[in-house]
This record gives sequence, C-alpha cells and structure tokens, in this order.
Amino acid sequence: MTHTSVAIIGAGPAGLTLAHLLHRQGVESVVFESRSRREVEETVRAGVLEQGTMRLMRETGIGERMDREADIDDAIDISINGRRTRIDLLGLTGHHMAVYPQHEYLRDFIAQRIEDGGELLFDTTVDEVTGYDGDEVTITYTAENGMQETITADYIVAGDGSSSPHRAPILELEGSERTKFEYPYAWFGILVNAPQTQKELIYATHPEGFALISTRSRSVQRYYLQCNPNDQVEDWSDERIWGQLHARVDGEGLTVSEGEIFDRSVLRFRSAVTDPMQRGRLFLAGDAAHTVPPTGAKGLNLAVADVSVLAPGLVRAIKTGNDDLLRNYSALAVPRVWRAQHFSYWMSAMLHSVPEQGHFQHRRRLAELEAMLATEAGRRYQAQQYVGFDLPTFDL
Amino acid sequence: MTHTSVAIIGAGPAGLTLAHLLHRQGVESVVFESRSRREVEETVRAGVLEQGTMRLMRETGIGERMDREADIDDAIDISINGRRTRIDLLGLTGHHMAVYPQHEYLRDFIAQRIEDGGELLFDTTVDEVTGYDGDEVTITYTAENGMQETITADYIVAGDGSSSPHRAPILELEGSERTKFEYPYAWFGILVNAPQTQKELIYATHPEGFALISTRSRSVQRYYLQCNPNDQVEDWSDERIWGQLHARVDGEGLTVSEGEIFDRSVLRFRSAVTDPMQRGRLFLAGDAAHTVPPTGAKGLNLAVADVSVLAPGLVRAIKTGNDDLLRNYSALAVPRVWRAQHFSYWMSAMLHSVPEQGHFQHRRRLAELEAMLATEAGRRYQAQQYVGFDLPTFDL
Repeated sequence: MTHTSVAIIGAGPAGLTLAHLLHRQGVESVVFESRSRREVEETVRAGVLEQGTMRLMRETGIGERMDREADIDDAIDISINGRRTRIDLLGLTGHHMAVYPQHEYLRDFIAQRIEDGGELLFDTTVDEVTGYDGDEVTITYTAENGMQETITADYIVAGDGSSSPHRAPILELEGSERTKFEYPYAWFGILVNAPQTQKELIYATHPEGFALISTRSRSVQRYYLQCNPNDQVEDWSDERIWGQLHARVDGEGLTVSEGEIFDRSVLRFRSAVTDPMQRGRLFLAGDAAHTVPPTGAKGLNLAVADVSVLAPGLVRAIKTGNDDLLRNYSALAVPRVWRAQHFSYWMSAMLHSVPEQGHFQHRRRLAELEAMLATEAGRRYQAQQYVGFDLPTFDL
Repeated sequence: MTHTSVAIIGAGPAGLTLAHLLHRQGVESVVFESRSRREVEETVRAGVLEQGTMRLMRETGIGERMDREADIDDAIDISINGRRTRIDLLGLTGHHMAVYPQHEYLRDFIAQRIEDGGELLFDTTVDEVTGYDGDEVTITYTAENGMQETITADYIVAGDGSSSPHRAPILELEGSERTKFEYPYAWFGILVNAPQTQKELIYATHPEGFALISTRSRSVQRYYLQCNPNDQVEDWSDERIWGQLHARVDGEGLTVSEGEIFDRSVLRFRSAVTDPMQRGRLFLAGDAAHTVPPTGAKGLNLAVADVSVLAPGLVRAIKTGNDDLLRNYSALAVPRVWRAQHFSYWMSAMLHSVPEQGHFQHRRRLAELEAMLATEAGRRYQAQQYVGFDLPTFDL
C-alpha cells in the first residue's frame, strides 16, 4: 500500500477508536504502533468508562465483552474519615458507569480492527511526517521487518500519547499554546491478589491523605494511596501500605481486603492542554493533545470524545470535500477538555490532603465535600460530570 | 438596673437579632453599643438576606417594612465577558432572596427593641468583662453620661464585630483556634445616583476582573470592581471606574448606568473562623467570631444563623437550667460557618481574575463557571447555597 485516507499514529484509545469509527463510515486508515500487540494488550491500565463511551461501544457493535465482563456500577462511595456517603449515579443521572481496564478496551478494538481487515501495524515506528501543510501527508516509517518505507495519506492523526513529538509543529503556530499544571501530590498504586473490598469504588479522604479502592476482578484489586510526588516505589513497605490503607479507608464495618501485592507504581499528577489540536492535515487526539490527572478517570473518555468530533470531520472532508467540521475540530473539542480538566482538578482538590495549604483550606475543602454530599443537587452535579455528558454527534 | 439575664455587646445583626429572639421567649437582655444610634442606622452597608433570614423576620413580626421596601429578587445573573446567564433562584429552590441593606435591617430591629421596651444603650462602651468562668458575669461600662457603672448578667454575648476584644479569653483555651485566610484581591465599591442598570444582581467576570452590579433603590446603585488589595480610593478616577465597569459588564443590550459617585471605599477580602465560639458564660456571635468575604453575601445571614442556635440555648438554660444546647452552641454553629466560608471562597475564586495563578487556573475556572451554569444540577447547587439553607430550629 502506498496511500491511505487517514494515517493514525498510536494504537491507544484515540487511534483505535478513530480507526473503528472511520471504518464504519467506509473510510480506510492505517494505524502505526511502535509497541508489539502483546505489549499493548498486556500493559495493565486503569479504566472507568463514561456512559457515552459505553454507548459508543454498544452502538458500534463492540460492546459485547464489556457488557459481559466489566464491573457495571450504579454508584460510587465518598468516604470522609471512614464515614461513607453513596453517590447514586444511576438514580441521579439515569446512567451507569463501567470499571473496564483500558487494556481490555484496547483488546476489543484490536480484535475488531483485525476482524474488519484493517491495517494495524504493530512494531512499526513512524520516523518522519511531512507535507501536512500541503495537499498530501508523507509518512516515513520503519516496519516490523526493519525496512524503512513510506506511505502517503490525506490526513494524519497523532494519538501516540503524552510524549508525542507531533505536537511540536502545532506549537510553532502563532497563538498556539500548551498549558500545564503540576499538582502537589501523586498516587502510589498497587495490584493485589485479594477478594473485593466492595464492588463499588471508594474515594476516601483522611488527614493522612487520599485513597482509592477499585477493583479489577473478584480476585484482583487496584488500590491507590496519595503519596509525595517524589516518592519512589521503595519508599512504601508492605507494612506502610496496609497501615495507610486501613487508616484512610476502614470504617463502618468495612475493612480493606489484603493480599499479595504483585505490582507497584507511582502515578504523577499533571494537567496539560494543547490548543489548537490541529495544523493543516495534522491532528492530535487523546493524550497526545492533553493530560488529565487520574482522579476523574477522564483520560480514555476524553480520547473517545476527541475522535467523536474528528471521525465525522474526516469522513465528511474525505467523502464530500467539505472540511468545515474538520477545521472546527479544536474549537469543538477543546471546551470538553477544559471541563474534564476542571472536574479532575476539582475531585483531586476536594479529596487530597495538602497540609502546606494551611488549615483554612483543609477545613474549607471538607466543608465543600460535605456541601456537595449533603444535597441532591450537589450529588447530581458531581454524578453528571462523573458519568460524563453525551458524546457529540454530527450528521454525515 | 444591676442584673440582667443576658448582656449583649454590639447592636449589630447578631446582637439585635438575639435580643429580639430572647424577648419573644420572655428573656430580658441589655444591649451595649459604643456608637450612637444615628451612626448605627446611617452607616450604609450592603445586605442580601437569605430566605431563612427573611422568614425569621416575618415569623417574629419584624418583616413588614422589608417585605414592602426590599428588592425581592427571583434570580441573579452571572456574566462571562458580557454574556449573561440567569440563575433562576425561585425556580431552582422555591425561594426568593432580598436585597435589603444591613442598616435597614438594623433600623427595623432597633425600632422593635424600643417598642418592646428593651434596654438598648447607645454611646455606651464596655470596659471590662469578668466572671464568665464562674457563676455570674460582671460587666463594667462607661455610660452615655460618662459615668462608669457595673451590671451583672447570667450570660454575656459578644456581637461587637471583627475587632472584638472578647475573642481573646476563648483563644486562651487549649485546642481553640482562629483560622485565617487572605485573598489576593479586594473590591472597590461605589454608591452612585443613577437609575438601575437592571433590577437583579449581576456577578460579572472578565479578563480585567470581577464586577458586581447591585442596587440600593430605583435611584441609588451600588457597584463593585475587583481591585488590588493595596489600592487606595485615590487610585480610581471616575474615568477609570466607568471604563472598567463598562468593559467588565456591558453586553447583550445592557449598559451600566452612570451617575454622580457619592461614596467610594475599598473592601478587604478576608476569611476568619474562631472555634470554639464560647467559654463558660461568654459567647461570640456574628463577625466577632468569623469573617467572610463579601462575594457570597453571607455575613449578616451567618450572624442570624449563630443566634438561631444561641437564643434557644440561652432561653432553655435560663428557664429550665438545662444548658445542653448552650454547651453545644459551637458544635452546632461552626459547621454552617465553614459551609459559608466555602461558598464565599468558591464564588470568589470562580469570578475573580488572578493572572498570577497562571493560565491553567484561568481556563479551569472559566470551565468551572460554564459547567456550573450549563446544567440545572449545577445551577441548583449554586442557587441553594446562595439563598441559604433553613435556619436551625429547636424545641424550647
């Protein structure tokens, strides 16, 4: 193959969802992924699916395993010093959410892409992209066999994550900007062979810090503890981990279930927004454009929201020559990115303990949590943002 | 008179409301006020009455003039760069709010106190308070005639404002604390002879800063502009004032009405919370205990909420000897203080422009405003806090 309609860099949520949506509208693409299929499918990543993401999977014929295997939850718990308040997502919004790890999401889309006969090139590194300001993009890449090859495309989409080198040409544009924010905390995360502490997620705040109780399956649990951004994995002994989990979460008859810890990692908290997300025939999607901290669980969903605008924009431009929607991609996608940044920041700020911010902020944030939890309006305001707003739709 | 049940320092919202509530339950008090009646009644102060404060006035027979003369509003406007969104307080909460200046509130309570034959001593300075840890309080004061006199009381309540010297004995207690917070902005306020810009309040945010359009009457308007905390009144020429008001507020067919400026002042933004609010027979109420920034318009209402706990506590203790409620005064009153601190901080943070906080926080706060305004749940969450929650009630 020497030409494709859309070249997609990265077989992550943005790239694979885009390729799938394009295929369903009869637009072919090639996905380039530098990692192996095995690495993509086996790198365990967290994942909470917004209602819109769940619906997109179902409506595009890819939701069957998710519906069968994901933890479909009707509620989350917010715990303040061991006292839990339930946020009834279903009752407040009419929607569920799904705890479905990102690598499971990717497996479903990879399987579908292969079933559909799509071009999905693993172990393939993109070396150079040129021509995005002209009539055609040229992609030079090193294939799985080590040979360097080229392909041309009408459009190129970079969905290759937060280290994407393809932001650089966009940031050269006058008026473009990348806005960053660093948080004064991080998460120490573990995977544990243990029974579920409870089916539904628990977001816990405590003077010692935040903790999150989530689950991978009946026998594998995912726990997080607020830690210092400079902490190393070695700073957290098993004794310290269990001591802190019990201190921050236990209460009202609930005890964090223990087991063998088989994975330990530190997650940095960063926000970043690139605006615009496009230049000529080059487009960014997902983490290549923006980073959110993990508290709001918005990362995967924001990638899906991006391509819900980008896919119809590309389809319309390729099929009809009308690129109005495509030219408005950033204007349509960026406001949702900022809403997600705000929600992630808000959830983070309400739940994390930052003694350096002083006693006023400590007491104020507890009052905010209580104000939000004490009224139906407050819980609904939180729940609607948590399950996510409908994905944008466009006539094609 | 040599003895009273309750000595009250300060004829402000806390002291006068308390004296009125005690009188209605048959408990007599003496109010000491260092200023003249004229000064109290003529010092123009802003005032937005929560629904609970309005109800208290009506239910205790003092709401007639307020109902006749106050601006009873069903809504407020939030303006972002000149685009206004209405928050339908009545539709969202079932409640109105009243724009009724604080000095008008005080006039009503002073008139009622005098009609009821209450002891209300203007131009009278309290010199010393002793005995609050024992069985009886002794108050030494300098009367209007310059003579120093003493009176004893069962209880003493300090409602003498944010500079109250009567916090000191409470802050000597182990575990007591005064938590403070300074904001990076202030308000430059003016009173203007001009027709109403519009009947309902406009809270405006703009890259140049916040502005508030409020009203005193059909012909006197109260406008505020975010300014630097170090600004002096002289830093704001008429030209600068009108230029900034038009820049920050005008839009969609609305123009800020101009007129002769007859009062100019700078309002500092501070938060402070004293906890506990009591020691022995000494109690704090209103600004003597806590300060809120003006954005949420909670100052007067919080004083009324304090005495809604304190009055029944005092009545029960005096009439029955049961001081359970009185001993729990701080535990019952302080959570509402923190809720009000949070609401005032939240409204302030969402609406004020602080370039030093960087571009991420600027864009995030606009996204927060938009998230709050875009959904009914968000508007209701704001509106319920704005009109205020019901005042606590206790069986006597």
